[in-house]
Amino acid sequence: MSRESARSLGKGSAPPGPVPEGLIRVYSMRFCPYAQRTLLVLKAKGIRHEVININLKNKPEWFSEKNPHALVPVLENSQGQLIYESAITCEYLDEAYPGKKLFPEDPYEKARQKMVFELFSKVPSLISSYIRGPSKDHSVLKEELQKEFSKLEEVLTNKTTTFFGGNSLSMIDYLMWPWFERLDALELNECIAHSPKLKLWVEAMRKDPTVSALLKDAKTYQGFLDLYLQNSIEACDYGL
Amino acid sequence: MSRESARSLGKGSAPPGPVPEGLIRVYSMRFCPYAQRTLLVLKAKGIRHEVININLKNKPEWFSEKNPHALVPVLENSQGQLIYESAITCEYLDEAYPGKKLFPEDPYEKARQKMVFELFSKVPSLISSYIRGPSKDHSVLKEELQKEFSKLEEVLTNKTTTFFGGNSLSMIDYLMWPWFERLDALELNECIAHSPKLKLWVEAMRKDPTVSALLKDAKTYQGFLDLYLQNSIEACDYGL
Repeated sequence: MSRESARSLGKGSAPPGPVPEGLIRVYSMRFCPYAQRTLLVLKAKGIRHEVININLKNKPEWFSEKNPHALVPVLENSQGQLIYESAITCEYLDEAYPGKKLFPEDPYEKARQKMVFELFSKVPSLISSYIRGPSKDHSVLKEELQKEFSKLEEVLTNKTTTFFGGNSLSMIDYLMWPWFERLDALELNECIAHSPKLKLWVEAMRKDPTVSALLKDAKTYQGFLDLYLQNSIEACDYGL
Repeated sequence: MSRESARSLGKGSAPPGPVPEGLIRVYSMRFCPYAQRTLLVLKAKGIRHEVININLKNKPEWFSEKNPHALVPVLENSQGQLIYESAITCEYLDEAYPGKKLFPEDPYEKARQKMVFELFSKVPSLISSYIRGPSKDHSVLKEELQKEFSKLEEVLTNKTTTFFGGNSLSMIDYLMWPWFERLDALELNECIAHSPKLKLWVEAMRKDPTVSALLKDAKTYQGFLDLYLQNSIEACDYGL
């Protein structure tokens, strides 16, 4: 059973065989925030899974058969069914597998989590622009990010709970977490400096056993990012 | 009980009272494709509802209390719970109300519909750019739209069914329909000319009782759009 820390498969690699019965496979990349969502849900629900890491800078020829967009995450089950788009994979896992439900059963509470998810929706692209963009745009992007975070701060203020779904961690927290984990590495902590409840949420998230099992430190992210921005085919295997 | 054809409420209007027990209210606008999604689901599931139309060119002061983004659709139930974002309202209705389930119960089939929904996701913004943009960009936008439609054509080709979820109409069809209903009015029919299965889908959709009950003709849309693009506060009540 391949683990999260397996070396990635690249061009020229043999396509993996069918997924063994009783297991689900996730095509991932060790530093991808979208794939991290799926890994968090797999771990939180205790679903037996295997991980196949994909070299996103040197993609295997067969990978577009798993997802026409050739992006991670992708889930593949033993019936050969394929599911992609990170939020869709998370909801699929929550519905298809027994154990603790991460989305609330109540339709209104579930809808509320999805409305918060919409409120969060600009954050990934802002952070991506920050990473890729020229540094002259950095202060503008930081301001925009701060504005987005203040919307999330307002949600927590109105809710008066530690987490976005209540007093315990649920789906919405996992869906947003990967971008907050990277703030430190990206030197973007100042953007949540004026959002005290969001800061407390970040601290509480780090203590969750699922979150902490997948945590990577700032130095590791930076090491990866340096190579990634140089388009190095070694980026996805940084540190192995 | 207010109907779909009620005049819209604008600035200076009194906020409506609480929603009566056993009813759900939708804040809508007669020509809004996003609100049409919610209306289609309400009708398809036979949910007792009232419609309050909002003048989007002259919004009531109280409307931002219903949705901080001040957009339609918004659902409000008799417990005062508010739900916005069109796809979220549709899923909420499907889960909270009995009757025919519009999303498949099977988690994989449901995930497939959501993947098609992602594939469709560029269409609304392309059509919106087409409507608002200078006509010199029209041919570029038409080409892009044609490309998006060919992806949907491929889904139908692989599925070999009339509708996107199978041989009967389901949630994914309703979620995409409003933009196809407007192709005629926008003189964009040529964009599906090379997608024969998508054309057959459009024809089949028009025959569905729910879809046909909410159909508006091309002339009506054009009349609305003329006023809307002039920022006329009469636009949302066109034809009443």
